[in-house]
Amino acid sequence: MSYIGIDKGGARHTYALANASGEILLTFQRNTPRDGSAQQEIVSLCAEISGLISEGATRQDPVSRIGISFGGPVDASKGETIMSHHVKGWEHIPICSIIEKKFNIPVVLDNDANCGALAEWKFGAGVGIDDLVYINVGTGIGGGVVANGQLVRGAHGVAGEIGHIVLNPNGPACTCERRGCLESYASGRNIERRYRELTGAHELISGQEIFARAAEGEKEALAIIWETAEYLAHGISLAVGILDPDIIIIGGGLSEAGPLLFDPLDEALARYVIPQMAGIKVVPAKLGYECGVIGAVALAMHVQ
Amino acid sequence: MSYIGIDKGGARHTYALANASGEILLTFQRNTPRDGSAQQEIVSLCAEISGLISEGATRQDPVSRIGISFGGPVDASKGETIMSHHVKGWEHIPICSIIEKKFNIPVVLDNDANCGALAEWKFGAGVGIDDLVYINVGTGIGGGVVANGQLVRGAHGVAGEIGHIVLNPNGPACTCERRGCLESYASGRNIERRYRELTGAHELISGQEIFARAAEGEKEALAIIWETAEYLAHGISLAVGILDPDIIIIGGGLSEAGPLLFDPLDEALARYVIPQMAGIKVVPAKLGYECGVIGAVALAMHVQ
Repeated sequence: MSYIGIDKGGARHTYALANASGEILLTFQRNTPRDGSAQQEIVSLCAEISGLISEGATRQDPVSRIGISFGGPVDASKGETIMSHHVKGWEHIPICSIIEKKFNIPVVLDNDANCGALAEWKFGAGVGIDDLVYINVGTGIGGGVVANGQLVRGAHGVAGEIGHIVLNPNGPACTCERRGCLESYASGRNIERRYRELTGAHELISGQEIFARAAEGEKEALAIIWETAEYLAHGISLAVGILDPDIIIIGGGLSEAGPLLFDPLDEALARYVIPQMAGIKVVPAKLGYECGVIGAVALAMHVQ
Repeated sequence: MSYIGIDKGGARHTYALANASGEILLTFQRNTPRDGSAQQEIVSLCAEISGLISEGATRQDPVSRIGISFGGPVDASKGETIMSHHVKGWEHIPICSIIEKKFNIPVVLDNDANCGALAEWKFGAGVGIDDLVYINVGTGIGGGVVANGQLVRGAHGVAGEIGHIVLNPNGPACTCERRGCLESYASGRNIERRYRELTGAHELISGQEIFARAAEGEKEALAIIWETAEYLAHGISLAVGILDPDIIIIGGGLSEAGPLLFDPLDEALARYVIPQMAGIKVVPAKLGYECGVIGAVALAMHVQ
């Protein structure tokens, strides 16, 4: 028995074949065709799936389920996309039934944040933990929730949208057209914005560069990181107060920030949560770039 | 088969005997002895339990489990209180095993907010709904979470502490020694405080009186209620963003406020949540004063 995992991101798709224990047997990437329609993309997805099914058969490990991590909201129970965060044309595509019909193998689908949570829970920093919150801080901020040893999808499939909880209704404008969401302060894009505003720089200075400058002791860069820790702590404390998780896992680009971010984040979080939760741990994700495809495999393995 | 439910509040205990479907067969109250120790209280609890067990036997409906709703944090898995919100002396009392040993009937325990959530979920405004948030707004603010058709207790038994999530770290001082918690704005006590501050009144004007004045069109009272709706909407939107529930149930004294509160609350909530959640419903609890004891019965019926 084996599983196929597919991480359908914006710029590329990552594929994996995994054995019954979820170990990756092989993995590869394909660039997404620019300006390709959803139909064209599904044709190329199916070509790769076909190859992986043959590979499974050759290894005498036939594929028993396919999991797809999708970059945008989905209706997991229907196996349909709702829209893509990256390109148009993915509104309400019943991708699971299309692929199921073609290969007669069950297909399961979830959004990339839930798959990230699944990956870290089953194979990463959250192994064996029944209550956790996963927050992906990259260009934007997404998240996933595990409670009582189950992924929480919510009534409309949008549980874990921690990037768009409002910290301050009078805060900066957010991409979601409201103001003061966690993302409008602490996403990669907004860390860069705040640094530009503080320093008066006109050119784009990347988040990575800001962290490098902070590591060298630059005052402005350090101030921006401390402020980021404060905003993240506030946002995380809200999830902690509502869910009482055992740990918080930070994935995405920010997971690599090290003590420069995680030390002030722990300190700030202890101030925001109720006293009996002051020991709550924020840990970086263990799985790096492959988190998405591992999450797709985990989804295929642990249908819920 | 029947169940005993006990709501151990501050001023009194409420007892119920319920049949296999959870219908209350009989219920009564006893005042809590003032200055009684935990031991004394348990003696009087046991006397009432003994009577109810006999009653069950007489009805040929023997009691198969006892549920206790406790006014304070508990360790539900150990069946121990952590402390009482009302009196000293209830630190780490293994109340379940004490009663179990005496009567040889299983006893289960949870805090009053979780029992309130259970009551509304199994017998009130949340029947048949798998994802809901229950918020009790009385003197203080507590809450409980149901996700994936299960009560979420969290890793330390304090999930649903929505009263103590921080809306504004620079807000008013809270009883928990932090600042700007939802409770520090929107609990009954703080609605009264804000009204006093706005009007300059020196005497205590009760929440009920403030709502009565608003119903008569008093500008200051209306302003305070609209402000309360705004704070509650902000707090509720955080739970909605993280959990994506089907409904939000407001229990406690505020559940009786009617359209005066619920209309501006719905309007404000639609502004705070992500657009696809704008239709989320806030509904008043259906069970009134008996919510606690019904929750204790629900707990006994649906051990999880």
